[in-house]
Amino acid sequence: MVPHLTTALTGPLLELEKRFLDHATEIERWMRVQWQDHLPPFYGSTDLRNSGFKLAPVDLNLFPGGFNNLNDAFMPLCVQAAQAAIERICPDARQLLLIPENHTRNQFYLQNVAKLVSVLQLTGLDVRLGSLLPEITAPTTLELANGSTLTLEPLERRGARLGLADFEPCAVLLNNDLSGGVPPILKGLDDQWLIPPLHAGWHVRRKSIHAAVYDRVARDFAAVIGIDPWRINPEFGVCSQIDFHERTGEERLADEVDALLARIREKYREYEVTETPFVVVKADAGTYGMGVMTVRDASEVRGLNRRQRNKMSVVKEGLEVHEVIIQEGVHTFETVDDAVAEPVVYMMDHYVVGGFYRVHTERARDENLNAPGMHFKPLAFETCCSLPDCRQGPDAAPNRFYAYGVVARLALLAASIEIEETMPAEAELAA
Amino acid sequence: MVPHLTTALTGPLLELEKRFLDHATEIERWMRVQWQDHLPPFYGSTDLRNSGFKLAPVDLNLFPGGFNNLNDAFMPLCVQAAQAAIERICPDARQLLLIPENHTRNQFYLQNVAKLVSVLQLTGLDVRLGSLLPEITAPTTLELANGSTLTLEPLERRGARLGLADFEPCAVLLNNDLSGGVPPILKGLDDQWLIPPLHAGWHVRRKSIHAAVYDRVARDFAAVIGIDPWRINPEFGVCSQIDFHERTGEERLADEVDALLARIREKYREYEVTETPFVVVKADAGTYGMGVMTVRDASEVRGLNRRQRNKMSVVKEGLEVHEVIIQEGVHTFETVDDAVAEPVVYMMDHYVVGGFYRVHTERARDENLNAPGMHFKPLAFETCCSLPDCRQGPDAAPNRFYAYGVVARLALLAASIEIEETMPAEAELAA
Repeated sequence: MVPHLTTALTGPLLELEKRFLDHATEIERWMRVQWQDHLPPFYGSTDLRNSGFKLAPVDLNLFPGGFNNLNDAFMPLCVQAAQAAIERICPDARQLLLIPENHTRNQFYLQNVAKLVSVLQLTGLDVRLGSLLPEITAPTTLELANGSTLTLEPLERRGARLGLADFEPCAVLLNNDLSGGVPPILKGLDDQWLIPPLHAGWHVRRKSIHAAVYDRVARDFAAVIGIDPWRINPEFGVCSQIDFHERTGEERLADEVDALLARIREKYREYEVTETPFVVVKADAGTYGMGVMTVRDASEVRGLNRRQRNKMSVVKEGLEVHEVIIQEGVHTFETVDDAVAEPVVYMMDHYVVGGFYRVHTERARDENLNAPGMHFKPLAFETCCSLPDCRQGPDAAPNRFYAYGVVARLALLAASIEIEETMPAEAELAA
Repeated sequence: MVPHLTTALTGPLLELEKRFLDHATEIERWMRVQWQDHLPPFYGSTDLRNSGFKLAPVDLNLFPGGFNNLNDAFMPLCVQAAQAAIERICPDARQLLLIPENHTRNQFYLQNVAKLVSVLQLTGLDVRLGSLLPEITAPTTLELANGSTLTLEPLERRGARLGLADFEPCAVLLNNDLSGGVPPILKGLDDQWLIPPLHAGWHVRRKSIHAAVYDRVARDFAAVIGIDPWRINPEFGVCSQIDFHERTGEERLADEVDALLARIREKYREYEVTETPFVVVKADAGTYGMGVMTVRDASEVRGLNRRQRNKMSVVKEGLEVHEVIIQEGVHTFETVDDAVAEPVVYMMDHYVVGGFYRVHTERARDENLNAPGMHFKPLAFETCCSLPDCRQGPDAAPNRFYAYGVVARLALLAASIEIEETMPAEAELAA
């Protein structure tokens, strides 16, 4: 049983959701045609923010790590979508090697891996786990809190193919975002499907490139249903050659923040929004909510103290931050029992397979809930995202979730185009 | 809430279901590879019989008429599968014309149509209903028992395209099995998707051809999981040039029945089955359970009285029967509250989207529950058919339904091959 969501929504979002409802047929047809031209990523998840006047994606993850948080009632959807994904990408595959993140003690993450394994097995794949951790030198079984187990095995490179002892997989699926770069053992694989392609990893992926593609997708889509693209699209700017330790580029960053805040203020005036605008400064490469800062005034980035500079200068795997994206902040106006709640939508192939809220009682509406040490409580969506119900109001659960699913799919489409457009030339691939 | 199913199963089926469970990965992979080579029908339904020692399809319908009987909890599966079907067959389609059966007073059938419309709309299609009934000369709105409405409109033929007033559909979907032949208005359509193709209609389709293809599919599949194909495949024979009124071919039919019963008896001895074998004599073309007779001894077809001869000689649309298929009868050993229950599995594209039991208190285990005047009670499947659970026994609901889904998909695959192999030559199509 999933608790009901208590929301405190203002008029404009209802109007936006109503627009989605009224145009559901055009929306689905438009999506269908887009997916004829672009290969959907194998899987992905989108973090959304719902401010009442705006419903927008703020992150698109190509290595989703929360399948364990989805509503079990929608497992069949997940299996069906995974079948479609496998058929599209590696239709003959018999054996699949799954490479997870190097977390061996994070029970939540391990349960995500276990869920993913069970879904993939039901698509007709023999699935085993290969670890990038050097200390995994023999099959190592991890006990999960829910009583099940996972066995990590050492990877074996044989020529241009990757496998395990007695295991020659047709396909390799990464659930590891490659933040630390591509390990040599993954380079130059041949005659084996590698999903997603290496350049989808955070070692080369840039939030700003995704945001620029999303900007185009949002404009095209907005024209189809006749809305201002700003309603679904956070404004953004980029600032490179930053060094937080050395305080290099601080002024340029402050100017960029100032310019973006000015653009947002203008939009707020247009929509008669009385909230205080804010922006979020994030490392352009990187994930896990590291290197993220909420800013309401440019002066805040000028006078960063040592602790703040340290926090901003390093992301996952200890990488230094030199480029940041400054993204329009979208207030979180949804709550569950008075706690701030942010939706995360999960997709496989181009299908929405579920989602959950990150629920946190101790954070404000303009703070990031996906941050290190933040123990959010996941609350699975109670209905699926593909069954809007025109007989109910735009804020009824099926319609709210439909709206989430639409915006999440727009971000997924942007990721698909981003992967296409950032595909390295063959010469680079061979290097 | 769906009531639990009470079954009275003997050992052998548990062993068969266990075999499916143990080989689920191979099964799913085999299915995936088959669907690379064969185009799945847009939709289909399979009637299964579950005798404890045998789980077999006895009918495959390419114009399913019971979507209203499916569990609403699986509507998202249905929508997702319908999206896949539309993408595969008519990816650019914007408008779809649905042509239903000519039943304007059958509330159950009309609710099926309404359900189908709502599923198709969610795939991004503008859907309208065109009627083949001559009395529909203007848009006619039918009230449904559940409060919704359906509007039937007169078809308009414009050159090589079919439409309605102010409606130029990209695709035409038949939910009419064409038992009475192809109406001229449907012939020679060009530049428009016609789904399924005309030769899937009962005016040319033959149960015996389907059975012959299923026989091959069942053999191939049985080899993959190491079972005797008989466990999933009803034996059959064919008898043509029959005239029940004139008693022409009666002896040949009796001989065929005798030979088939002898084969079944031998199998029963092999499997130590103590039930009385029976066969079902059916019109080779035709549906709706018309022209169907249960026979335990060849003598029964020799001495048919006038009423029986009348019953066998005519099927839907008043067509005369001249060819019959004699199919091994499979006892129905499943019950719900002591009533005989027969599973029907629904599929769209190659996905199982749900199913229901035909439950009837007044029929015996060797009688056909899909017959005129038979008011079966539909009981929707309580779980989906794609999530077998190895931690539970083979007779647990998810595993029973998985077994149904596997056998139903085999029948669907046979239908796909049947449609390929019976495709008319271009010259015939142009005629």
